Amino acid sequence: MSVTAPKGFRAAGVACGLKSSGARDLALVVNDGPSSQAAAVFTSNRAKANPILWSQQVIADGTATAIVLNSGGANCFTGAQGFQTTHVTAEAVADALSVSAGDVVVCSTGLIGEQLNRDALLSGVAAAAASLGAHGDDAARAIMTTDSVPKTVVLEGPGYTIGGMAKGAGMLAPGLATMLVVLTTDADLPAAELDRALRAATRVSFDRLDSDGCMSTNDQVTLMASGASGVIPPVEQFTELLTEACMSLMTQLQADAEGSSHDIVIAVSGAVTDDDAVEVARSVARSNLFKAAMFGNDPNWGRVLAAIGTTNAAFDPYAVDVSFNGVRLCHAGAPDRPRDEVDLSGREIDVSIDLKAGSAAATVYTNDLTHDYVHENSAYAS
Amino acid sequence: MSVTAPKGFRAAGVACGLKSSGARDLALVVNDGPSSQAAAVFTSNRAKANPILWSQQVIADGTATAIVLNSGGANCFTGAQGFQTTHVTAEAVADALSVSAGDVVVCSTGLIGEQLNRDALLSGVAAAAASLGAHGDDAARAIMTTDSVPKTVVLEGPGYTIGGMAKGAGMLAPGLATMLVVLTTDADLPAAELDRALRAATRVSFDRLDSDGCMSTNDQVTLMASGASGVIPPVEQFTELLTEACMSLMTQLQADAEGSSHDIVIAVSGAVTDDDAVEVARSVARSNLFKAAMFGNDPNWGRVLAAIGTTNAAFDPYAVDVSFNGVRLCHAGAPDRPRDEVDLSGREIDVSIDLKAGSAAATVYTNDLTHDYVHENSAYAS
Repeated sequence: MSVTAPKGFRAAGVACGLKSSGARDLALVVNDGPSSQAAAVFTSNRAKANPILWSQQVIADGTATAIVLNSGGANCFTGAQGFQTTHVTAEAVADALSVSAGDVVVCSTGLIGEQLNRDALLSGVAAAAASLGAHGDDAARAIMTTDSVPKTVVLEGPGYTIGGMAKGAGMLAPGLATMLVVLTTDADLPAAELDRALRAATRVSFDRLDSDGCMSTNDQVTLMASGASGVIPPVEQFTELLTEACMSLMTQLQADAEGSSHDIVIAVSGAVTDDDAVEVARSVARSNLFKAAMFGNDPNWGRVLAAIGTTNAAFDPYAVDVSFNGVRLCHAGAPDRPRDEVDLSGREIDVSIDLKAGSAAATVYTNDLTHDYVHENSAYAS
Repeated sequence: MSVTAPKGFRAAGVACGLKSSGARDLALVVNDGPSSQAAAVFTSNRAKANPILWSQQVIADGTATAIVLNSGGANCFTGAQGFQTTHVTAEAVADALSVSAGDVVVCSTGLIGEQLNRDALLSGVAAAAASLGAHGDDAARAIMTTDSVPKTVVLEGPGYTIGGMAKGAGMLAPGLATMLVVLTTDADLPAAELDRALRAATRVSFDRLDSDGCMSTNDQVTLMASGASGVIPPVEQFTELLTEACMSLMTQLQADAEGSSHDIVIAVSGAVTDDDAVEVARSVARSNLFKAAMFGNDPNWGRVLAAIGTTNAAFDPYAVDVSFNGVRLCHAGAPDRPRDEVDLSGREIDVSIDLKAGSAAATVYTNDLTHDYVHENSAYAS
């Protein structure tokens, strides 16, 4: 059900020829209200795709009635013609639904620097608008690119529901990742509270996923609230449930990251500030030598220390403890337990780093660097 | 000849059992004077190995009479016992040569977090001291780890010579890279001028090599001047020749980078400041998606723009031009020439990025991300 689980939403996922495979490539999600409050967060990459430039304007007033998403092309670095394509797509959705184009969010994903086939897109919009219904699962399939499985979530709060779908299998990095996420709810909350909840939820979920250190030009997470449940939840309770939904989608993205063979959780404690903890964890998540060692099931703690030594965080490298899957291999910057006590053969790897400098902590999620990652990204052209 | 080409230097390279292969693993270079002026630059990694901590003290007074280097172990994160190993190594060299231990620089390279075999080291020092001569090539072989070839350089100035040797095949990144370099000269210059020349030369050579984004704990570049030629060159002329020597060694390191199939030159022009140009070039050099595309001979300029969009440099992403091997694929942030006009099948790849924002420029040197890189770094344990 994904995005159509909450009351007040219809969706469709159709094939319009943007993907050469003939698979579904256009998704439409419509909020039938009564409320149309919405919030969104966008890539922090300065090279923003045309749909990002458009959607930032749409969401500025805190309302959105529909979101249209295509795979098969990012519509990024496509010039004025590309922006026009985004614009006419929104207009076509608006015409089909009798709403304002200024309330239609647009997302695109795929190869950068290629024009989208505008005729195909518009035929897809017409087909999607004609088949709207409880088709959240079709929509979740239509936004897939190199994803091997659709990613969806449905969570129940007291009297209301949160649904969601996500795509993303590479270019997963901070400030969001080539990742499109649509979250829906029938809770009744104003845009300002949705925005606050969404920023709190993404800060500890999608923003902490750093699969390959590469930041996309097209990332967007959109939250739409229909108010159809009639329930006005306390914003803290809603934020908690929304965070749980985002964490679920984030771990689904991590588990499906291109070519990965390990899901790695890097937990930093003992930092002076949260920012320090995030910086330290991210430096490890971005070390190719660390990531290659994880692929080889080698608990190479020296590469962890070499990575964190490049940061500006406050700590003494010769005070640090490092554990792999609960076995402390490094104590106070020197060898502790033997490496062969650690088994890294499972998919999950936990790396714990205690900086011994303070009481702040943060967790970053990443993947290993594998032959399949190199293969998929050297051959990528879809 | 490498480091023994300039007058006033003797060297040796011996096998003492630190490498399980039985290959040469200890090098000694001695400056017989009459001058003993020296300068060095060290890794900016805060996690510094024991030999770095020692050598920083040795070089502080601007003099050094010998440098001893071992492969087969980095002596990093080995605690007080490890520092003691560095100390007794310097003492052993000092005893054998009848010099002060405070003038003996020590370098180590290999796996982090393992104690060096002290007995093996000391036997190696004795053997090296007993075989000192014009053995610069043996010394260059003794410092190799995963290097496939020794790296050496000899350049002639007016009346004086610069010689050098380098090791390094991975963890090649800014602020130096797992790289040990020894430069020798028989020019007669004071330590302050050697230091100035060395910093100028490394800033545009080793500091601009960013093979895999990983910064080592053990990097060191040491320059020793014997003054044995009796020539006092103008410091600008000497700096120019030294820069040429460093560029030669740097490109030898790049060409031998672990598992690489391409040497990539990223030239950024049109920047407002030099720092901006370096930041932009480095962001591309560190993008795994870009590097994987290069492995696949795919001139994926979208990944270049996605990378530079993550920087804080001053420019408009929609003004930028990007060329591969001289073919402009992106003009003003939009597609220009067709991708198939570019041939990336050779080892050398030139990527030119014109930011159209100013007149500053910088070049960064990197490699592609390959199956062999993943293989070598997931299996590394020597």
